[in-house]
Amino acid sequence: MPLFDLPLHELRRYTPVVEEPEDFDDFWSATLAETRGHAHAPVFEPVDTGLELVEVFDVTFAGWAGQPVRGWFLVPAGRPGPLPCVVQYQGYGGGRGLPHQWLYWANAGYAHLFMDTRGQGSGWSAGDTADPAGSAPAHPGFMTRGIEDPETYYYRRVFADAVRAVETARAHPLVDPERVTVTGISQGGGITIAVAGLVPDVAAAMPDVPFLCDFGRAIEITPKDPYPEIVRYLTVHRDKVAPVMRTLSYFDGVSFARRASAPALFSVGLMDMVCPPSTVFAAFNHYKGEDKSIVEYPFNDHEGGGPFQEREQLNWLRARK
Amino acid sequence: MPLFDLPLHELRRYTPVVEEPEDFDDFWSATLAETRGHAHAPVFEPVDTGLELVEVFDVTFAGWAGQPVRGWFLVPAGRPGPLPCVVQYQGYGGGRGLPHQWLYWANAGYAHLFMDTRGQGSGWSAGDTADPAGSAPAHPGFMTRGIEDPETYYYRRVFADAVRAVETARAHPLVDPERVTVTGISQGGGITIAVAGLVPDVAAAMPDVPFLCDFGRAIEITPKDPYPEIVRYLTVHRDKVAPVMRTLSYFDGVSFARRASAPALFSVGLMDMVCPPSTVFAAFNHYKGEDKSIVEYPFNDHEGGGPFQEREQLNWLRARK
Amino acid sequence: MPLFDLPLHELRRYTPVVEEPEDFDDFWSATLAETRGHAHAPVFEPVDTGLELVEVFDVTFAGWAGQPVRGWFLVPAGRPGPLPCVVQYQGYGGGRGLPHQWLYWANAGYAHLFMDTRGQGSGWSAGDTADPAGSAPAHPGFMTRGIEDPETYYYRRVFADAVRAVETARAHPLVDPERVTVTGISQGGGITIAVAGLVPDVAAAMPDVPFLCDFGRAIEITPKDPYPEIVRYLTVHRDKVAPVMRTLSYFDGVSFARRASAPALFSVGLMDMVCPPSTVFAAFNHYKGEDKSIVEYPFNDHEGGGPFQEREQLNWLRARK
Amino acid sequence: MPLFDLPLHELRRYTPVVEEPEDFDDFWSATLAETRGHAHAPVFEPVDTGLELVEVFDVTFAGWAGQPVRGWFLVPAGRPGPLPCVVQYQGYGGGRGLPHQWLYWANAGYAHLFMDTRGQGSGWSAGDTADPAGSAPAHPGFMTRGIEDPETYYYRRVFADAVRAVETARAHPLVDPERVTVTGISQGGGITIAVAGLVPDVAAAMPDVPFLCDFGRAIEITPKDPYPEIVRYLTVHRDKVAPVMRTLSYFDGVSFARRASAPALFSVGLMDMVCPPSTVFAAFNHYKGEDKSIVEYPFNDHEGGGPFQEREQLNWLRARK
Amino acid sequence: MPLFDLPLHELRRYTPVVEEPEDFDDFWSATLAETRGHAHAPVFEPVDTGLELVEVFDVTFAGWAGQPVRGWFLVPAGRPGPLPCVVQYQGYGGGRGLPHQWLYWANAGYAHLFMDTRGQGSGWSAGDTADPAGSAPAHPGFMTRGIEDPETYYYRRVFADAVRAVETARAHPLVDPERVTVTGISQGGGITIAVAGLVPDVAAAMPDVPFLCDFGRAIEITPKDPYPEIVRYLTVHRDKVAPVMRTLSYFDGVSFARRASAPALFSVGLMDMVCPPSTVFAAFNHYKGEDKSIVEYPFNDHEGGGPFQEREQLNWLRARK
Amino acid sequence: MPLFDLPLHELRRYTPVVEEPEDFDDFWSATLAETRGHAHAPVFEPVDTGLELVEVFDVTFAGWAGQPVRGWFLVPAGRPGPLPCVVQYQGYGGGRGLPHQWLYWANAGYAHLFMDTRGQGSGWSAGDTADPAGSAPAHPGFMTRGIEDPETYYYRRVFADAVRAVETARAHPLVDPERVTVTGISQGGGITIAVAGLVPDVAAAMPDVPFLCDFGRAIEITPKDPYPEIVRYLTVHRDKVAPVMRTLSYFDGVSFARRASAPALFSVGLMDMVCPPSTVFAAFNHYKGEDKSIVEYPFNDHEGGGPFQEREQLNWLRARK
Repeated sequence: MPLFDLPLHELRRYTPVVEEPEDFDDFWSATLAETRGHAHAPVFEPVDTGLELVEVFDVTFAGWAGQPVRGWFLVPAGRPGPLPCVVQYQGYGGGRGLPHQWLYWANAGYAHLFMDTRGQGSGWSAGDTADPAGSAPAHPGFMTRGIEDPETYYYRRVFADAVRAVETARAHPLVDPERVTVTGISQGGGITIAVAGLVPDVAAAMPDVPFLCDFGRAIEITPKDPYPEIVRYLTVHRDKVAPVMRTLSYFDGVSFARRASAPALFSVGLMDMVCPPSTVFAAFNHYKGEDKSIVEYPFNDHEGGGPFQEREQLNWLRARK
Repeated sequence: MPLFDLPLHELRRYTPVVEEPEDFDDFWSATLAETRGHAHAPVFEPVDTGLELVEVFDVTFAGWAGQPVRGWFLVPAGRPGPLPCVVQYQGYGGGRGLPHQWLYWANAGYAHLFMDTRGQGSGWSAGDTADPAGSAPAHPGFMTRGIEDPETYYYRRVFADAVRAVETARAHPLVDPERVTVTGISQGGGITIAVAGLVPDVAAAMPDVPFLCDFGRAIEITPKDPYPEIVRYLTVHRDKVAPVMRTLSYFDGVSFARRASAPALFSVGLMDMVCPPSTVFAAFNHYKGEDKSIVEYPFNDHEGGGPFQEREQLNWLRARK
Repeated sequence: MPLFDLPLHELRRYTPVVEEPEDFDDFWSATLAETRGHAHAPVFEPVDTGLELVEVFDVTFAGWAGQPVRGWFLVPAGRPGPLPCVVQYQGYGGGRGLPHQWLYWANAGYAHLFMDTRGQGSGWSAGDTADPAGSAPAHPGFMTRGIEDPETYYYRRVFADAVRAVETARAHPLVDPERVTVTGISQGGGITIAVAGLVPDVAAAMPDVPFLCDFGRAIEITPKDPYPEIVRYLTVHRDKVAPVMRTLSYFDGVSFARRASAPALFSVGLMDMVCPPSTVFAAFNHYKGEDKSIVEYPFNDHEGGGPFQEREQLNWLRARK
Repeated sequence: MPLFDLPLHELRRYTPVVEEPEDFDDFWSATLAETRGHAHAPVFEPVDTGLELVEVFDVTFAGWAGQPVRGWFLVPAGRPGPLPCVVQYQGYGGGRGLPHQWLYWANAGYAHLFMDTRGQGSGWSAGDTADPAGSAPAHPGFMTRGIEDPETYYYRRVFADAVRAVETARAHPLVDPERVTVTGISQGGGITIAVAGLVPDVAAAMPDVPFLCDFGRAIEITPKDPYPEIVRYLTVHRDKVAPVMRTLSYFDGVSFARRASAPALFSVGLMDMVCPPSTVFAAFNHYKGEDKSIVEYPFNDHEGGGPFQEREQLNWLRARK
Repeated sequence: MPLFDLPLHELRRYTPVVEEPEDFDDFWSATLAETRGHAHAPVFEPVDTGLELVEVFDVTFAGWAGQPVRGWFLVPAGRPGPLPCVVQYQGYGGGRGLPHQWLYWANAGYAHLFMDTRGQGSGWSAGDTADPAGSAPAHPGFMTRGIEDPETYYYRRVFADAVRAVETARAHPLVDPERVTVTGISQGGGITIAVAGLVPDVAAAMPDVPFLCDFGRAIEITPKDPYPEIVRYLTVHRDKVAPVMRTLSYFDGVSFARRASAPALFSVGLMDMVCPPSTVFAAFNHYKGEDKSIVEYPFNDHEGGGPFQEREQLNWLRARK
Repeated sequence: MPLFDLPLHELRRYTPVVEEPEDFDDFWSATLAETRGHAHAPVFEPVDTGLELVEVFDVTFAGWAGQPVRGWFLVPAGRPGPLPCVVQYQGYGGGRGLPHQWLYWANAGYAHLFMDTRGQGSGWSAGDTADPAGSAPAHPGFMTRGIEDPETYYYRRVFADAVRAVETARAHPLVDPERVTVTGISQGGGITIAVAGLVPDVAAAMPDVPFLCDFGRAIEITPKDPYPEIVRYLTVHRDKVAPVMRTLSYFDGVSFARRASAPALFSVGLMDMVCPPSTVFAAFNHYKGEDKSIVEYPFNDHEGGGPFQEREQLNWLRARK
């Protein structure tokens, strides 16, 4: 619980050298091109939830390799578009759950697409999306699936899905494609940064206590999962440090942040032992967009700002409308 | 995590003898009479939350001894009454938090009053209601405050507040006083049962994984807080077993259940180590009302049914409308 | 660490009713037939380990769906066949590691095939075999991959691999196909029982502290992984108890034991919290073969007999030669 | 258990800047004046303990707001005054217990007043003193009761009680008012420093491993309760960092130490994770009195010197007689 | 913390069959005879503790094999004998500490001999007595030293020391040899029972939450040290269950209780996980003397009655004077 | 699990000042001379293990004070000498176990002597060697036995045994005395360094993640046993810091390393919390021999390289043959 990372004044200027492979952009262009090649029309099925103020749809869209990815789509009942939209990604281990858990943005007047994370959704919130890809030997969890090679790494598929979620939202007749914001907590925050780097024209990005940043440091200082899944993998596969670090260099939030230009609102817990503050500041300080700010929660661990940050986000978005 | 309580077929017929003091009803009549003697008009202040589909009010009403108790009141924006209403009580250690955390019932078309629990609200969700009463020596937490005597016991004040919350809701012009349902999880479920016993004409009661039931058994079989606060108190105050057990006999959910006649929907986790299933079934099996049912979650610990149970509740309420 | 399961005299006669689906045998016949349809010649590549008394080969054989499964094959250097052979399966989370870890059986004069477990081998001993199949949402670990349906369940592939390992050993020119014994610890013991049920003419089966038996009881009484992976999956997927229990009914060691007739030497730790003794005795007591015995370690947890049991096994096998 | 704070040579010169509010002295003058305004004569009731060498009295004196505070008063049986006196304060969560637990100082020839801590005494040693004041929402424990405002903070009442304990001892006919020493362990040590700052003419102060010093640093580096109660409060009440830090600035042991001039004997455990050594040295290094020394226990956690330090204290006091 | 042993009504009549070796009495007669053969005059050196009401002596007497055993001897200062005397044994891992920790009995008018436990005294209270005997391989701790054979078992030496402590006290000119009481907590309670069985004419025995009773059950139900030291030894030495159980049969408190006739005051914590209540009742229910009683602490773990029981003891002893 | 010690570039040059007593060499010369004075012929009894490729002998040789020390001696079956030999020492708490656990070196063509550690062998692998020496009060475990004085310290006896193990191996007719290598993991690595310092002409030394180095730093930074046994001893024996540190100065691996000249292959886990990397580098950097190298495992805790390092060792030895 105590402070364990750099002092605050150092955090605020911490801009580590995070190495990128030369073909970083090519890798992602190819990945997205290939993914889009499999795209087909999404399905929005109305769901009877008993709710009267919002309409809910069970979404299935084509993600990586055209594989079906599920989500919930909520809109204010009976309100005509075009609506601003929030696309949200889930935290590690969780799934999309039930739609009535995600009422905030629709109640605030937004269309809201909540994306399931493939294969996850059995740790604390139920998911409905399979990950049809197998893996070489991997540590329990998702952090080391296919980690020997960037081509097969699990998050390649997830980030591709996430870009497709934005594209799916933009194509919906109720949504104003110019006003799509991406957000998420923890893993959802890491995905948010990746999408902001891969889809430069999103309207805004709001990553909370983001995961998947500054891997090299994260795996050396964090004792709490999920970063240590990688450490435990390497304690067994002692001969695979180099390929693992190479793979991760294609997925580091710092590299995506360098390419992201949308207005951004970050948050960070200064006592966060899951996503240590230095790794969050690494992404924030490298973030390319100039309209960026970060809310610091000085005594919070990974729970971060919780509902306080949700309130901040709505106020911040309203101020930018 | 494994099963540790009675087998399911015994749970379903477990109806323990829970002793009641002779003056149980007198005690509570006097408590409520005294409380109502301090009643004064509640205040409903509108709050700008940025939400468009619901209207939110910051409520202050007179609880025990007329002391101010806070809550949130949410209604579907612009919808005329009379509305059915759900009054909800919070789990142990939590407070009312921020109003956008409680959108479910308003989105389903209900007025919704969420009551803060006095003194609590600093463990995992912020509260705003003081408990102005001090206490004899007590173990950290709320379970043993004033426990030497039923007159001074902490939950006397809480249950009185909770009854007043129902009365406050009923008096609101938008609310149909015939259709007020009480609900809550864990401590909130325990309070729900108490209110159902004290206010016989509530429309329905929906206690989830309720706390505060069958104290005598609970403190002997549960290793997880908060019941063990009482155990730890008694490890120190070795000479106070009798007065403590006497005090608790005025507050046992089983005794309130015996007096409650509203239709009821319970839930229970069969691996719940915080509110062991036998203590929940003790209340359920003793519950007086005939329209009662219980949803069993066979592999869940204290998280119980979570969003699945919320969905059950709405369906169950809709079927009774 | 204390005794937590049935008393010893009850364990010794514990023969629970474990329900089997009607098509249990058809399911497995079809699975094996399909697997064998993909079989192709194994590869045995010599490895320079620096060892002088044994010869080591890196084996690749066709497992489920013809997918490559790796293993080590060790034989006494320069000794002509036919040799008796031990086929060994690994414990949960482990992989085949390095070949010099498996010198025992070759030093005792046996050919020894140590099979890698697909996908595993990143928890405490390195593996080299991929599991190319993806999965619906699953809890971290392997227990719930594809668990919605017996067709997709992870252990369907593993058990098919394991049968193929026996067939691969039998086909090796140095091995006497009449004298192939199967063995393994924990998960390896569970696989051993499955193979003994599926390949009735193995020479002997030596399951140690076997896993994967009497699932219905195991998930209700064990707090230590990996059985609780299933529990945690069900805490999230509260609506999937029935399909999960149905799937497991195709994989229960008790059902395989009922079909297994080879001489068998079991072991059990009476304080084993990972594979509780009742679940081991469930398989042992149901085991069909009449030449069966079990070594009880009264004060051991899941480490069981360790090297003491290895010594027992060699003596037991020598006595049956 | 390992060293986790500053190296010893830095500890010995660590004199942090601890900010004080301008009205620090006024606040405390007013508090004590108000408290003394409620003073009334203490009661000393003889207790039959079966002990023959000491006489024991159950003390009740008027503390903050004139509220009754309990204690034990022990004197060597039959010995005439005036006696030197030791006033002792209890550690966090404990109460005065039973009088035969406190025989040391009376056996050494001192009168001994052991003060109960209001509201506490249910964690590990029984207390008998109520804290009649309620509180705004607070974390379980005593650290955050009334913490929004120095006026309502729990320790305001405790420190006022503690000053009154000295005054009560001084007024006893057997006690030499010039020779009253204050002491205590942990919380008792923190109270000792406060009293030494508020009652400049006590004869000596002997704080052991004192708590309640250098709050700003303590809550950032300590993972073990009770300091983290404040952290957990702030994780929930994310918007109250400023008022909380303001309140604490009226209660920091460093500020009291700056005002204390009596001869002082401190102790510190260099591996103390509850009251980290830097926070103890912060008070010691700022201590105004010149006759001061500190006993360092290099390998001790919060147990500090235990009986060794008691022996040190008696020797130190005897040398000063 | 919850109840985990037999229900109270069964505890009260629990009289297990505890097997004794035929030569139990011979073994102990021979042990004591041999020990007494090495006896020589004890040394009582006065210690300057700064205490004025008691006189303190550093005692060294000849224990097993004539080896020096240390203790503290305290008497009311200047009081003439003959005095009743309390001989006290220490809990597991502790040593005699410093003499001012043991003021209770001297303050109550008794001579008091506190015996150090050989080899121990480095776990939580310092000891000064060596155990010059080595051991075959043993688990860390004292429970398995020399456990292969009753002749070499550690507690043979300790119990012989303890009998010699009584004899040493009786021989002191200030002590009335007819009025020597033995007592102790936990291990000290186990030693107390052994001494009461070996020295039938002690005046009284007061074992608190005694250890070293009903070994066969204790090692099967207790997860908390020190009983599990034996379990862990047997997890490694899987082939030594029989000799270990044989050795323990010479040291079981139940067998000593069967031979003890002095008036006895026991205590037991009904939630005691270190010395489970059934093992305490096993000794109590088998205790031969008719003037026996037991104080039950229903909610206490191994801390038992603490200072409450000390008060009970003094009252009980005074009533028997 | 995270990095907690010095950064790698500092580790690589970390050469702490470790003080040695002036009579360090005299102490050890005298110890070895005295030990050798008690030497007598070892016994090698053949054991029937059922293994066919190796021959196994149960060894008993004269260790410190001529006391019997056990071991296993394995050689390739039927192979004539002279053979190179590996002498191996065991990790803390373990014993020699069963001989079939140690097949590696014999399978690689070496004679192999595996030495039991006196008194140990009851924690995780069975031992058969007594430690006939008793001890002054000591903490459970072996780290503080006899620690008041270098003459009585436990490791004096162990290191003497270990030197005698080398001498025993060298004297065996099958062994080439010029080609005896010493090795061991953790405690075995610490003993390896000591032997390399005491027997300058061993052929090679291969300490893995060695224990018993740089005690002064180790006890200040390590929270995981066994180093903290010393810390806990000192928390109780607060007055014995100086004699304890003096004793340890005769046993520090750094001092032995300064005297060792054989070719050496070390290993270190950079996340090793039991034997922190700085303490390993302290010995390595001070190691006198010039043919030295160290394998760094960047993400491993105390498991270090495991089978990977065994493979390294064989390759390294083969390259030096």
